[in-house]
Amino acid sequence: MGKNKNKVEAITPRDEDFARWFTDVISKTELVDYSPVKGFMVIRSYGYAIWENIQKLYDERFKATGHKNVYFPLLIPESLLKKEAEHVEGFAPEVAWVTKGGDKELTEPLCIRPTSETIICSMYAKWLHTYRQLPFKYNQWCSVVRWEKTTRPFLRTSEFLWQEGHTLHETAEEAQEETMQMLNIYREVAENDLAMPMVVGQKSEKEKFAGGSATYTMEALMHDGQALQCGTSHNLGQHFTKAFDITYLNRDNQQAYPYHTSWGVSTRLIGGIIMVHGDDNGLVLPPHIAPIQVVILPIAQHKEGVLDRAYALKDQLSNAFKVELDDSDNSPGWKFNQWEMKGVPIRLEIGPRDIEHNQCILARRDTGEKISVSLDDVEASIADLLEEIQKNLYRQALAMREAKTSKAVNMDEFKHRLKENPGFVKAMWCGDRHCEDEIKDETGASIRCIPFDDEQEVIGDGVCVCCGKPAKKMAYFARAY
Amino acid sequence: MGKNKNKVEAITPRDEDFARWFTDVISKTELVDYSPVKGFMVIRSYGYAIWENIQKLYDERFKATGHKNVYFPLLIPESLLKKEAEHVEGFAPEVAWVTKGGDKELTEPLCIRPTSETIICSMYAKWLHTYRQLPFKYNQWCSVVRWEKTTRPFLRTSEFLWQEGHTLHETAEEAQEETMQMLNIYREVAENDLAMPMVVGQKSEKEKFAGGSATYTMEALMHDGQALQCGTSHNLGQHFTKAFDITYLNRDNQQAYPYHTSWGVSTRLIGGIIMVHGDDNGLVLPPHIAPIQVVILPIAQHKEGVLDRAYALKDQLSNAFKVELDDSDNSPGWKFNQWEMKGVPIRLEIGPRDIEHNQCILARRDTGEKISVSLDDVEASIADLLEEIQKNLYRQALAMREAKTSKAVNMDEFKHRLKENPGFVKAMWCGDRHCEDEIKDETGASIRCIPFDDEQEVIGDGVCVCCGKPAKKMAYFARAY
Repeated sequence: MGKNKNKVEAITPRDEDFARWFTDVISKTELVDYSPVKGFMVIRSYGYAIWENIQKLYDERFKATGHKNVYFPLLIPESLLKKEAEHVEGFAPEVAWVTKGGDKELTEPLCIRPTSETIICSMYAKWLHTYRQLPFKYNQWCSVVRWEKTTRPFLRTSEFLWQEGHTLHETAEEAQEETMQMLNIYREVAENDLAMPMVVGQKSEKEKFAGGSATYTMEALMHDGQALQCGTSHNLGQHFTKAFDITYLNRDNQQAYPYHTSWGVSTRLIGGIIMVHGDDNGLVLPPHIAPIQVVILPIAQHKEGVLDRAYALKDQLSNAFKVELDDSDNSPGWKFNQWEMKGVPIRLEIGPRDIEHNQCILARRDTGEKISVSLDDVEASIADLLEEIQKNLYRQALAMREAKTSKAVNMDEFKHRLKENPGFVKAMWCGDRHCEDEIKDETGASIRCIPFDDEQEVIGDGVCVCCGKPAKKMAYFARAY
Repeated sequence: MGKNKNKVEAITPRDEDFARWFTDVISKTELVDYSPVKGFMVIRSYGYAIWENIQKLYDERFKATGHKNVYFPLLIPESLLKKEAEHVEGFAPEVAWVTKGGDKELTEPLCIRPTSETIICSMYAKWLHTYRQLPFKYNQWCSVVRWEKTTRPFLRTSEFLWQEGHTLHETAEEAQEETMQMLNIYREVAENDLAMPMVVGQKSEKEKFAGGSATYTMEALMHDGQALQCGTSHNLGQHFTKAFDITYLNRDNQQAYPYHTSWGVSTRLIGGIIMVHGDDNGLVLPPHIAPIQVVILPIAQHKEGVLDRAYALKDQLSNAFKVELDDSDNSPGWKFNQWEMKGVPIRLEIGPRDIEHNQCILARRDTGEKISVSLDDVEASIADLLEEIQKNLYRQALAMREAKTSKAVNMDEFKHRLKENPGFVKAMWCGDRHCEDEIKDETGASIRCIPFDDEQEVIGDGVCVCCGKPAKKMAYFARAY
């Protein structure tokens, strides 16, 4: 085999042009590519492997809490979409319409699901008869389409992959418990496995789901100081169950409408992972979701015994970790850069001298630190180091977010903080839509969430940052993706 | 909790009306439901769990043979679909067209993928540069849409779930090897895990994939004597790579077109499982893919200690098997029928007397046989029994297929056999499309496949069953879904 002439191409420095840095990283690491259909992305194998790992973590948690997977049709008749007034208003402008099947015009246009509340509720109405069947706890993994004008891979695309959970309950309290349970699961996996610290809380009326009673969200802060909505859990009350006439015989032998929730996370999370952890050298992947956790680089691989020992090590480690061995004839420098760019948490170097001393070198992607470990307990060393990297990524991300979070008591301060140190601004809000709009118009920042009581605090004198009237709640504001 | 008033409703006997039997089974066991969109099915949790089990088995095999998962866009521009002439001719009449996004008419219609060769080839053309990158071995799990006129859940629906593998290779030989490798993987999982014996071989020119060089198939025989195409593997040669101008620098430093394969299995396999194994009492599920392998029915569950022992048993068995415990207050008779209908391989009964004797009863779904086993080694007994059921289902299905397979040397005999004993008819075929069409017109039977050489045989004098001219190959004929 001849020499591979490709070189690791330079990535735009992150602080020079964040948007270009992001684009460079996702294409040069082959996570994703642009397709011939505007706004639609191709998820390449390295990106899809991350998604599979995220899926697995969430799917296990969904199943452990009693949810079962199902699959509902891709297409939704126009008449169904229109049944819940706020919902159709929210989604109709951004759906793709199928008007022709084979060579025949359809009598009723069908939209590609932008989300599946309507089609699912139409089936729940058919299935539900008695309280004994409740709760309904179903989830589906699928793709959805929302016709977006400006798109960016992973962050906002006309098609994306996600899961959507849809549940029905006897009481409002149970629906609220479910809504919060799923938000907590979202947060736990995001923080423990994606190493992304989250701010959680409720959305304002303006920002909530079209057709819902209350939307809860988890929000992460990216390196450029913009927020990313990473997952939402909706308490939909009886909006849809009434619109779709879902009734059941309750414990008092009365016809009743059940209470309804829905919740989703999507491939957008991958965008978050990139923008929270990535650096000037490319991706930095948390070990729990990295498609490759350890890459073995044989040093002086032409020397006798090196490749054999490296292959044996790969076999040994593959039982416990996701391992790749790069025995290509690219130069060591090229390989270092390549796998660093790909964000592999640990690079394992093994050469003739290492073998002689029964050791190898472990290099951390997060800190660049190199340590020498004995081959006798290399598995334990790697297991420990992966967990240390996992934790360190979370600590770093939390420190970054805290450094980019400020407080403001009036609009001048708000604008100043956002300009000097883009990120979250914590400020009091009176609850008035007018103030919310004004802040958005003047600063570009929206309310990301109103934290729950246990994370509430009073900023300054407790008056609205915009109108100066008394305010009961602190909200997180930020510019957002 | 009050008494559940539902009863297990009667299923139409299988031999009385096979189509109604099928419909009864899939709806009463809640595998699937009809959606508000004509021809689109809802896969309910019990059906979807079977699909997840099938997916897992195949996905492991794909990954073990070096394939990686990816995701390509749902929508394909009309111009791409049209690039390969035979392909567009084959698929254009049955695709759904998106003509509107939001409130804007699209300048170019987009079809929902009926299969993804075209969009994938358009990306492969962009990605492939040198022979060093080959082979490309990618797969995706997704839904596809084909606008069908008459539909039946799992067997022929306008939308179905499947996987489609798409590979590129340097040589025609490698592409052929890949095509055969995937056909073998399809067959092995189908036979070992779905317990469905397969006839494998090549499709005729008439029946092959639109745009392919050669299509290979695995075909199973259903209880009504009709065949079901269960998976296909296509050697696509250079048809698409030329149409999409996929070129690379080969080992001789020349621009060359790679060789191409694609292969798929779908939710149709679930239809096959139902129609091969099911009986008058409902589903019979092979243990390897059953969502519930063992259902525990506590007998006289109101008596002290019964439920506690049953719960403890469930906890114990759940480590090794997929276990459900039915502690509802339905009558034992109702529960027996219900779980029998659901096709659960083993029913475990445990009552006060069993507990006293440190034993329980295991009842087999496939034979109805009941055995009493000690609780001391109940896990080993269940493990053995599940494997015995798995093997027995395969043996039964093979015996059924053999009983429904006949031979014919001329058209009279062909018609007679097909009428007296509907199923596979093995007959010589000259290779002429005219004879193939004539047989189809006169009998409704199509060529399901031409077996490979090692499974070829000479029927009668080796002349075509239709025209009487010398024929080189035996083919399997059958009416088919």
